[in-house]
Amino acid sequence: MSLAQRTPAEFHDLVVAGDHVAVARAISLVENGASAALHSALFPRTGRAFTIGITGPPGAGKSTLVDQLAAEYRKRGLTVGVLAVDPSSPFTRGALLGDRVRMRSTPDDQGLFIRSMANRGHVGGLALAAPSAIRVLDAAGFDRVLVETVGVGQSEVDVVGTVDCTVVVEVPGLGDVVQTMKAGLMEIADRFVVNKADREGASRLAGDLRRMVRERHRGDAKPTVTMTQAQNGTGVDELADSLEQFRDHLIDSGALDRRREENLAREVAAFVGEYARRRLIGDDLRQLPKEMLRDLRERTRDPEGIAAGIVDAALESSREEVSDVRLTADRKPR
Amino acid sequence: MSLAQRTPAEFHDLVVAGDHVAVARAISLVENGASAALHSALFPRTGRAFTIGITGPPGAGKSTLVDQLAAEYRKRGLTVGVLAVDPSSPFTRGALLGDRVRMRSTPDDQGLFIRSMANRGHVGGLALAAPSAIRVLDAAGFDRVLVETVGVGQSEVDVVGTVDCTVVVEVPGLGDVVQTMKAGLMEIADRFVVNKADREGASRLAGDLRRMVRERHRGDAKPTVTMTQAQNGTGVDELADSLEQFRDHLIDSGALDRRREENLAREVAAFVGEYARRRLIGDDLRQLPKEMLRDLRERTRDPEGIAAGIVDAALESSREEVSDVRLTADRKPR
Repeated sequence: MSLAQRTPAEFHDLVVAGDHVAVARAISLVENGASAALHSALFPRTGRAFTIGITGPPGAGKSTLVDQLAAEYRKRGLTVGVLAVDPSSPFTRGALLGDRVRMRSTPDDQGLFIRSMANRGHVGGLALAAPSAIRVLDAAGFDRVLVETVGVGQSEVDVVGTVDCTVVVEVPGLGDVVQTMKAGLMEIADRFVVNKADREGASRLAGDLRRMVRERHRGDAKPTVTMTQAQNGTGVDELADSLEQFRDHLIDSGALDRRREENLAREVAAFVGEYARRRLIGDDLRQLPKEMLRDLRERTRDPEGIAAGIVDAALESSREEVSDVRLTADRKPR
Repeated sequence: MSLAQRTPAEFHDLVVAGDHVAVARAISLVENGASAALHSALFPRTGRAFTIGITGPPGAGKSTLVDQLAAEYRKRGLTVGVLAVDPSSPFTRGALLGDRVRMRSTPDDQGLFIRSMANRGHVGGLALAAPSAIRVLDAAGFDRVLVETVGVGQSEVDVVGTVDCTVVVEVPGLGDVVQTMKAGLMEIADRFVVNKADREGASRLAGDLRRMVRERHRGDAKPTVTMTQAQNGTGVDELADSLEQFRDHLIDSGALDRRREENLAREVAAFVGEYARRRLIGDDLRQLPKEMLRDLRERTRDPEGIAAGIVDAALESSREEVSDVRLTADRKPR
C-alpha cells in the first residue's frame, strides 16, 4: 500500500515506527510547511533522542565526520538519524553539501537514516523547518540525531539553537583561535573538533583551543577538544565518547531540560513573528491598503513606521475600542 | 565639533549633505537597530539614487568588480556609495568580504563612500538593516549605490529584493548554465557578468548564458551578458553602459516605481513579523507564561501550535471582548 493511501493515523504510526519511507515523506511535508497537524501529533513522541549539531566552515570535512560518527554510533548499537541542512544561497547550493558522494541510507540498515534538507517552500524558511524535521527523526525513534550545518548565523532560530549539543569543527589553516573567539564560537561550542589532524598546525590549533577553553569558558562543563581524521576514522571513537559524556552531564545536572526549554521558547518566538505576519498582512503584498502603498511610493512614511502602525493598530485599536465602549457603557444610567 | 554634540536635526542635515563621518555613523546606528527615528526622517530624502546589487558565489571576484565599477562611475562624474553586505556565519565572516585589501573611502574623494556591514545587533538581522543602510546612502545624495552580497537567499527581505537592479556575477569553472537555471538566478538577474573572462571556458559560459536568456527570459528587458576582467578593468565600462541602459529602461517604462513599491511592501511585511513578535513576546523568552513553558516541557503542545495560539488570542480575543461589551451595552435599556 502506498503512503498516499494511508490514513493520517496510519501515516503517523509508520513514522513513529521508524519506517524510512514514511520518515522521508514526513520531512518533505515539514520542508514544504504543510505539516502542522502531523508535527503537532508527533510532538508528544519527541524528547527521547539526543540531538547533536555539527557545524563549521565549508571545507572542514563535516560530512565525512558526520558519516563516520554515525557509523561509530551504529557499531555501539545505537540508531542514528542524520539531517544535513543547507541554509545557503542558490550559488552555494550543492557546493556545500552535495559535491561529494556521501553515505546514504540503505535498506540494509534500518537503524540509519540520512537526509538532506535545503531552503525551500517553508514559509518561515529553513530556520523554522529544521527543528520540526529534527523532531520527526526524534519521534521516529532514532537514538541519536546528527544535524550537519554550515551554521549561517543570521536567523532567529539558528540550527545551533535547536539541538542538545553543538560540535564546532575546525581545521588547521582555515583560521586561528583569535577568529574563533571573535566569531563567538566559544559561546556555542559544547565540543570542539580539530579535523584533518594530520595537517601541519593541527596540534597547535588544538593546544590553542584547549588554552582558550581553560581561560575563557564559563560553566562547569568545559568543552573538550578532540583531534580527528575523518577520512580514515581516527579519533571518531574518542569524539563519540566525549559526546556521550556530555550527554550524561546534561542529564545528570538537569541542564538538558533547561536547554531544551530555552530552545523551544525561542522557536515559539520565531513562529509568533511568522504567524502574526501572515495574519496581519497575508502572503499577497499587493493587498496592502492603497494608502500605505501610496505613502511608501511618495516616501512620506517608511516601511518600519508603517509596520509598527499595522501591529499597534491590530493589538491596540481593539483594546481602545473596548475601553471606549466601556466608557460609554459606564456613562449610561444604571 | 564631534557628532555626539550635534542635535538630531544637525546630524540629519550632515547625513543629507553627504558628510562621510555622519553617513558612517548613521549606518552604524542602522546596524545596531537604534535608528528608527533617524531613518524615518531620512526616508523622504530617498528614491533618487539608483541602487545596484552585485551578487554571485564566493570567489567570483565581486569585490574587485565593485571597486572597478565604482571607479568607472566616478570617471563619469557620478558619486557612488558602496555597501558590502556579509550575511554569513561566524565561520565565513572576514573570509567572504574581508580577506583582501579593498578600495577604501578616502578624504580625497568625497564622491565615493565605501562601507562593510555584517550581521550584528539589529533585532531583525541583516535582512532588515540592509535596506535602511542602503537608504542612508541614498539620502546622503550618492547617485549610484552598489550593494555587494553573497546572496544567502534565506531571509524574507533578501538584499536582492531591496535594490533597483541585480547583477549576477559568474565565473568559468564554478558551475554551468544548468546550475544557474536550477538556482533560479534567471528570475533575479537583470544583468549577467562573466568575470575572469580570460579564463578557459569564459566564452562558452557567456554564450550559454545568452542562449538561456533568449530562450527562457520573460519580459521585454532581457538581461545582457557582459564579459569582464575585474582585475585590470576590462569590460567594466561596457558593464556601466549596460547598467545605465537598464536604468533608462526602468524609468521610461515605469517599472522602476513598480519594483520599488514591491520591495518596500515586502519590507513592511518583514517588519510586521518582527514588531509583532516583539510586542507579543518581547525579547526575554523566560517571560513566556509558565503554563506554556510547562506544555513545551511536557511536550503536550508544540511550538508552532503555541505560537498560533498567542497570535490568535491577541488578535481575536480583544475583538470578542468588544463584541461582548457591545452585546452587554445593547441589552441595556435605552
